[in-house]
Amino acid sequence: MIDNKAFSFLLLTGAVLAVAQTPRQPRFQPPPDANVISPELHADGRVTFRIYAPKATEVVVRGEWQASGAKPPALAKDEKGVWSVTVGPIEPNAYRYAFDVDGAQVLDPKNTQTSESNTTVRSLLVVPGKGAEFMAANDVPHGAVRTVWYRSASLNQDRRMHIYTPPGYDLSGESYPVLYLLHGGGDNDDSWSTVGRAGFILDNLLAQGKVKPMVVVMPAGHVPGAGLSMGASPDADKFSADLLRDVIPYVEKNLRVRADAANRAIAGLSMGGVQTLNIGLNNLDQFSQIGVFSSGWFPEVLEQVKKEKREAWSSPATRQRLKLFWIAAGKDDIALANSRNMVAFFNQIGLPHTFRETDGGHTWINWRRYLNEFAPLLFR
Amino acid sequence: MIDNKAFSFLLLTGAVLAVAQTPRQPRFQPPPDANVISPELHADGRVTFRIYAPKATEVVVRGEWQASGAKPPALAKDEKGVWSVTVGPIEPNAYRYAFDVDGAQVLDPKNTQTSESNTTVRSLLVVPGKGAEFMAANDVPHGAVRTVWYRSASLNQDRRMHIYTPPGYDLSGESYPVLYLLHGGGDNDDSWSTVGRAGFILDNLLAQGKVKPMVVVMPAGHVPGAGLSMGASPDADKFSADLLRDVIPYVEKNLRVRADAANRAIAGLSMGGVQTLNIGLNNLDQFSQIGVFSSGWFPEVLEQVKKEKREAWSSPATRQRLKLFWIAAGKDDIALANSRNMVAFFNQIGLPHTFRETDGGHTWINWRRYLNEFAPLLFR
Repeated sequence: MIDNKAFSFLLLTGAVLAVAQTPRQPRFQPPPDANVISPELHADGRVTFRIYAPKATEVVVRGEWQASGAKPPALAKDEKGVWSVTVGPIEPNAYRYAFDVDGAQVLDPKNTQTSESNTTVRSLLVVPGKGAEFMAANDVPHGAVRTVWYRSASLNQDRRMHIYTPPGYDLSGESYPVLYLLHGGGDNDDSWSTVGRAGFILDNLLAQGKVKPMVVVMPAGHVPGAGLSMGASPDADKFSADLLRDVIPYVEKNLRVRADAANRAIAGLSMGGVQTLNIGLNNLDQFSQIGVFSSGWFPEVLEQVKKEKREAWSSPATRQRLKLFWIAAGKDDIALANSRNMVAFFNQIGLPHTFRETDGGHTWINWRRYLNEFAPLLFR
Repeated sequence: MIDNKAFSFLLLTGAVLAVAQTPRQPRFQPPPDANVISPELHADGRVTFRIYAPKATEVVVRGEWQASGAKPPALAKDEKGVWSVTVGPIEPNAYRYAFDVDGAQVLDPKNTQTSESNTTVRSLLVVPGKGAEFMAANDVPHGAVRTVWYRSASLNQDRRMHIYTPPGYDLSGESYPVLYLLHGGGDNDDSWSTVGRAGFILDNLLAQGKVKPMVVVMPAGHVPGAGLSMGASPDADKFSADLLRDVIPYVEKNLRVRADAANRAIAGLSMGGVQTLNIGLNNLDQFSQIGVFSSGWFPEVLEQVKKEKREAWSSPATRQRLKLFWIAAGKDDIALANSRNMVAFFNQIGLPHTFRETDGGHTWINWRRYLNEFAPLLFR
């Protein structure tokens, strides 16, 4: 018979499953990594990463805090088979990371915080501190991020989205404006609310009275079997149909939101920025406010846009409908040239906009900051 | 200058981050596992697992579908460094799994579905098919599962919970009854909505008209620094204070729910079953319906319970307040003896209850089925 202490340990570690089928002869064996802690944040901003991998020959850690081209730090193995390394101090921010164990990408098995992207899932490290307060889980009223499955008739599949509702949403009796917030080509609908910290950014802005309470809808932008949505035509990108005919109707049928152009905004980064441009600028009867982060059409697509859209977008009607058009890119951003070329076109045709060239590159570090700057401008 | 095709690929794979700091001299290098698919479900129920790990010497896959004691299947490496194995057919159900790469626990980097537990996070495999329809993401109206952060004054920390709201919740104008659903010692507040499939189970029951629409609150049951909550006193377990003084007030302040005993139920598995017993039976002014899955006090705790509670729980007032008391355990469940001993006590004192002895063990396979059986009995 299994004794109580062993039973408790099994329950605690989850190892119970390993013995569940043989209750009369359990082979009690605590997992060898039961006491491993990772990541461990130190007060000075350094971080220790640990992983149990007794038979590995080489373990390194790759994370978004590392400069490109920097050699990822190697972990060293102790006599128990636990590899570890202490790095940093790491600048306060949010970063995805993974171990590389003998060439394989390995999530930190001791960190339950993860962040999905388009093709993989990694561990999430949030380093609190100066400069990162705006994205932290502070002691302020929190909204909620819900995972929603819906039927996309346009794409003939069940799809998932994430939706942020502000604190007080459920009981206020009010209806809220909606920001549709699109991810980039490397990401999925989970990314804005995990590594992107969207919910926490909105919570903190709200607590400071800097932003209007709003619902933020974060749909999935990739269409299975289709490539990147980087063209010019909203009709050619099947995501447009999903957003306009399935996502928005779902949201307006199922959430307490306002359903008019004055209360609909759309923003996106990188690939999601191109989707935002195509969907937003071509549907100004539905969206009055647009944000484009680290994006712009590629040169040949821009030529097509110039040819097809110059007349419509230079019209007074367009200028009147578009209440906010906010564009940002980083000085080291691989999308900077596309952004600048696009902005030059908008200047040519007299389409009002704000263009912010910031420090930094094509990274979540900038995209979080852009959301933090952009959201307060909405629904004014 | 980076060409557009390479840029697109970088965006798609997320590899952009690796070159973001050096836009003028990007070293374009698609990740070597870009085309690896895992898990791949075949029509006959077999599943192929793959992982890129060129330098590993041994890779196996461990999953909850495997019989205890069974040797986990080994993967074989191809010339490109991709390991793979096809297993099964695997019975339709939901399972957590991870690779073991040279002794290290490795999440499937190609599967974005994960499931957290108390001490780790693993990949989630959902095999659709006969017998698993009740937990599948079927084409029915879906509720939503929200992640909520709240301040626990009782525990002096920010804590997370997951909350399911049924389809139609936001706009119905109605207030809903609430089931507080507790996880086991091996799990955390994420587990019921990932591997536990709670939201999908409720969605499917609702679509068939078998269950009352309800909100399901899935709080975090572990208290940092404290051991397993397996004692008899609700006061000794700090989670009780968190639930009664922080979680429930938060839910009743922030969600559209009914706030009386007739509309509050509590259920839990294993450790969460003991918490359910302690909190529920000692607070029948607040809960009228109780579910206990794979649980029961340990023998010495039961003796204490018998001594201290016999009088109160055998009273007519208790029988009158407790509208539903549903207990289940599996024939191969390591908690079966505790369950039976507890039920014998309830029989002694004449406390009405239902006790179901089912097939199976101390596993999520049973806990999902129990939720599917128990939820329809609530709020009648």
